[in-house]
Amino acid sequence: MYRTHTNGELRIENVNEKTTLSGWIQKIRNLGGMTFIDLRDRYGVTQLVFDMETNNELCEKARKLGREYVIQATGTVAERSNKNKNMATGDIEIIVNELNILNPSEIPPFTIEDETDGGEEIRMRYRYLDLRRNPIKNALFLRHKMSLEVRKYLDANLFIETETPVLIKSTPEGARDFVVPSRMHKGQFYALPQSPQVFKQLLMVSGFDRYYQIVKCFRDEDFRADRQPEFTQIDCEMSFVNQEDIYSMFEGMAKQLFKTFKNIDFTEPFPRMTYQEAMETYGNDKPDLRFGMKFTEITQIAQNKGFKVFDEAEYVGGICAENCSEYTRKQLDALTDFVKKPQIGATGLIYVKCNLDGTYKSSVDKFFTPDDLKLWAETMKAKAGDLILILAGKKKKTLSALSELRLEMGTILGLRQKDKYAPLWVVDFPLLEWDEENQRYHAMHHPFTSPKTEDLHLLETHPGEIRAQAYDFVINGNEIGGGSIRIHNSELQQKMFNLLGFTPEEANNQFGFLMNAFKFGAPPHGGIAFGLDRLVTLFHGSDSIRDVIAFPKNNAGRDVMIDSPSILSPEQLKELNLKVID
Amino acid sequence: MYRTHTNGELRIENVNEKTTLSGWIQKIRNLGGMTFIDLRDRYGVTQLVFDMETNNELCEKARKLGREYVIQATGTVAERSNKNKNMATGDIEIIVNELNILNPSEIPPFTIEDETDGGEEIRMRYRYLDLRRNPIKNALFLRHKMSLEVRKYLDANLFIETETPVLIKSTPEGARDFVVPSRMHKGQFYALPQSPQVFKQLLMVSGFDRYYQIVKCFRDEDFRADRQPEFTQIDCEMSFVNQEDIYSMFEGMAKQLFKTFKNIDFTEPFPRMTYQEAMETYGNDKPDLRFGMKFTEITQIAQNKGFKVFDEAEYVGGICAENCSEYTRKQLDALTDFVKKPQIGATGLIYVKCNLDGTYKSSVDKFFTPDDLKLWAETMKAKAGDLILILAGKKKKTLSALSELRLEMGTILGLRQKDKYAPLWVVDFPLLEWDEENQRYHAMHHPFTSPKTEDLHLLETHPGEIRAQAYDFVINGNEIGGGSIRIHNSELQQKMFNLLGFTPEEANNQFGFLMNAFKFGAPPHGGIAFGLDRLVTLFHGSDSIRDVIAFPKNNAGRDVMIDSPSILSPEQLKELNLKVID
Repeated sequence: MYRTHTNGELRIENVNEKTTLSGWIQKIRNLGGMTFIDLRDRYGVTQLVFDMETNNELCEKARKLGREYVIQATGTVAERSNKNKNMATGDIEIIVNELNILNPSEIPPFTIEDETDGGEEIRMRYRYLDLRRNPIKNALFLRHKMSLEVRKYLDANLFIETETPVLIKSTPEGARDFVVPSRMHKGQFYALPQSPQVFKQLLMVSGFDRYYQIVKCFRDEDFRADRQPEFTQIDCEMSFVNQEDIYSMFEGMAKQLFKTFKNIDFTEPFPRMTYQEAMETYGNDKPDLRFGMKFTEITQIAQNKGFKVFDEAEYVGGICAENCSEYTRKQLDALTDFVKKPQIGATGLIYVKCNLDGTYKSSVDKFFTPDDLKLWAETMKAKAGDLILILAGKKKKTLSALSELRLEMGTILGLRQKDKYAPLWVVDFPLLEWDEENQRYHAMHHPFTSPKTEDLHLLETHPGEIRAQAYDFVINGNEIGGGSIRIHNSELQQKMFNLLGFTPEEANNQFGFLMNAFKFGAPPHGGIAFGLDRLVTLFHGSDSIRDVIAFPKNNAGRDVMIDSPSILSPEQLKELNLKVID
Repeated sequence: MYRTHTNGELRIENVNEKTTLSGWIQKIRNLGGMTFIDLRDRYGVTQLVFDMETNNELCEKARKLGREYVIQATGTVAERSNKNKNMATGDIEIIVNELNILNPSEIPPFTIEDETDGGEEIRMRYRYLDLRRNPIKNALFLRHKMSLEVRKYLDANLFIETETPVLIKSTPEGARDFVVPSRMHKGQFYALPQSPQVFKQLLMVSGFDRYYQIVKCFRDEDFRADRQPEFTQIDCEMSFVNQEDIYSMFEGMAKQLFKTFKNIDFTEPFPRMTYQEAMETYGNDKPDLRFGMKFTEITQIAQNKGFKVFDEAEYVGGICAENCSEYTRKQLDALTDFVKKPQIGATGLIYVKCNLDGTYKSSVDKFFTPDDLKLWAETMKAKAGDLILILAGKKKKTLSALSELRLEMGTILGLRQKDKYAPLWVVDFPLLEWDEENQRYHAMHHPFTSPKTEDLHLLETHPGEIRAQAYDFVINGNEIGGGSIRIHNSELQQKMFNLLGFTPEEANNQFGFLMNAFKFGAPPHGGIAFGLDRLVTLFHGSDSIRDVIAFPKNNAGRDVMIDSPSILSPEQLKELNLKVID
């Protein structure tokens, strides 16, 4: 037996008991004739004591140990004279009389403390050591507990967890599918699922009624910051439901998570915002509602005063930053530089200071009278002391740049606190988006999304205007979940494929089994999938999803610890009947 | 809203209430002026009633419906005059006044009843319909509940579920790895895990202490009956444990499952048997202990009597089938044919009937006296009325054939009841097995398995004799779980790789990160993995693991429903820089 107790367990009540502990050496301190070791395991830290006077040999042995050695110590629990109120075991210490080195340790490449001196690269290479650090370890323990809580909620609501296959079928549409060559079927490939979408729909056809799965999904895409080639979804589907049923079921889940892990009671229904409103007032389909600073359009009132930038713009609009009228030249220049960054792409920034004395000062005073500026301020509900920031140009691009500016101002003004949560539903997404390059429609959500019944008449005439029964669940500017009510009628599904440019043959080839399934009594159904990685990241207050993944890949999709991906041996390739071409 | 109740919900207390139900039509019966519809969903069946007299039009509409139509019916709950005690809702029926066809159904390709007329192939092609059938649906619901119960137990015991990566590294050793070409890193591949082995060991190095994961694993092998290319493991690992700790933790889990799902109380510890004993007395490292019929070796007493088959045999041994002395010629011939099948490979079968009158009758009476036969019978503890069945030949092969014969006799005699469970631990597996063909050792379990301490001295001299700290958990002749105490010392691990024929370079190339990890304070650790598919199959009493997998692949590794694997488009191959060669 390696231990009688863990290092988080012993209390003042245990004094005089014999105990055996095992764990890692967090710290060794030599104080006069005494040596103290902080022994660590997952459960806590316990202080071991060695006394040069009473046991010289043992104390000498202890002094030779180093950080991260794994040891086993047997001794007697004693009351500490110098109690540590910050430690659960701080009232006691162990007078050790037997010491056993279970495994020595080389000096770790970075310090294993809450704050470490290790950079990202080295911590990833030695991820197993990084995982010993409390911030990372706690993130993963939180992930475990959140997954459990999700399961508890869904089980209580009669969802059945059902595993769907990982080796599925590649489709030409699935340009970002990872594929898997089959050894038994030469020249043929499986694909890894980007989501279990069709399988969960088939389970509804099977009458499973409520399905869920916490499941790995895969996408072989160029990695943007904070994406992983494999990620985990809380994937859910329900039968005989409409959008309201979905909202209420999954608001319940979110509320339970907030209550359990953040002790926040959301007593009201989460706000809902149409896609259109989100785009018009936040320039973004996942608005961060921790703060206001909505957009106000002033195109009408700003044009025809001789300022060419506005006159030629499709859209002129801005935000009002409260109490920022005294921003310095330098601060304003920094904001201008920010919006002019290539990834944001504005050509410039116009400001209006609503001075405390009631006057206005703007960067376009040449073109506009104080009354003009006053009208803008009134339209934008700016008070004396506020700062108005205005962008102008092509509508879509300007809204998007304004969104970035708004978020930047929110950050600057400390309005995006990590411990504040602003959940909402974004609803009524467009069904289709137009692909200029290929001159065709794409499904905005996916091809199985149901149009809104009241928009069905637009199907033949104005497909681009159809709204979908699709919704996203957003928290603090992050898309945490997304889903839709699905098409359950094979004819409508066929029409959708048609609209998306599939020939009947292609549609049949790729989704024939689904359309076939719809012919045998498919119930109305819909669902949602939540990104577990992102949800945990948000609850943990991390900046990167890599913090909540035990063994993440870097931004190039590479696991630097195991050094993967890697080349195959010629024999392996031969057995797969594959050749790598240059 | 599609329904106010499910079809399993309404009771006599609900009489006179208004209700709306949705579901599938299980059956339509027209009796005189009445039409009855059994409406089915996951939760049960409720009877709908339509009366030609009171609502002719509605009743006509109902009569036009067919099996598996999805409908919505609104009406009033009424007490049945003719109650059905076999149905939870059998006391009531619904007098329908509104009927809504949600989706029609073509005639299904097989009947959706507990007993179906559909063959395996067609049921697989229409798996979503097969899943509507109770036996399959219930298997999957049991799977869900068993997974939950496993989680409940492990969580109560402080295990942390941690997701390990699915895109890992291929090793030349992993001849059965599925590989995944990377688009971003041309010519490089990930591999899918055959198990999360090294990652769970790394989590122990990280101090996670107790890990588990219900996780998909992958093996690209020629499919034997009842294997799947993707399968699910309950994967567990613990730190600071020895074998006894593992046994007691996971016996606890198994006992909780037996109690919860089978109402069986296993109050005693599960029996343990060494690998050697299992092989000698059952010819098999996963003996079915639902019945006895142990082997008895009689080589010594059977040789040197002039019967060449025995005299030239390395091993002579047999089993005693109780009360089978009156087996007919035909029955004995059938057994002889059985053991002579190529996959069993015995050259013949010798029998001794221990007649009720105390005489003996054998197929080798020519060579042996009644006293000889009596001695055999005594040695084998055969009583009057029993039948002795003997095989002889090369030891290993004969034990194996005898094992098959024993199982066959167990089946014939009805000793392998599905509702009886005989769990045991098989322990002390050999560390290595000798590969004649390649003239080298293979790890019997895997290269990370710790030798037994008392056998360590054989490492240099007789590695083939070393026993491992490895164990299998067996139920009714099925290997349900297997694991080991791991090596946690990097030097010993290096030696093991050496023994297995890895050059230091190869070992470093493939497992360098693990050996490196062991240098920074690896705790003693060990674990086990259970096959969830097989465990559920056993509890459900199915014959095939395909019954407990929602969307299984066939024996050729093919998903006939989605038709996968399949060929890729030339564009996809090009983007992966791959060429299929013939």
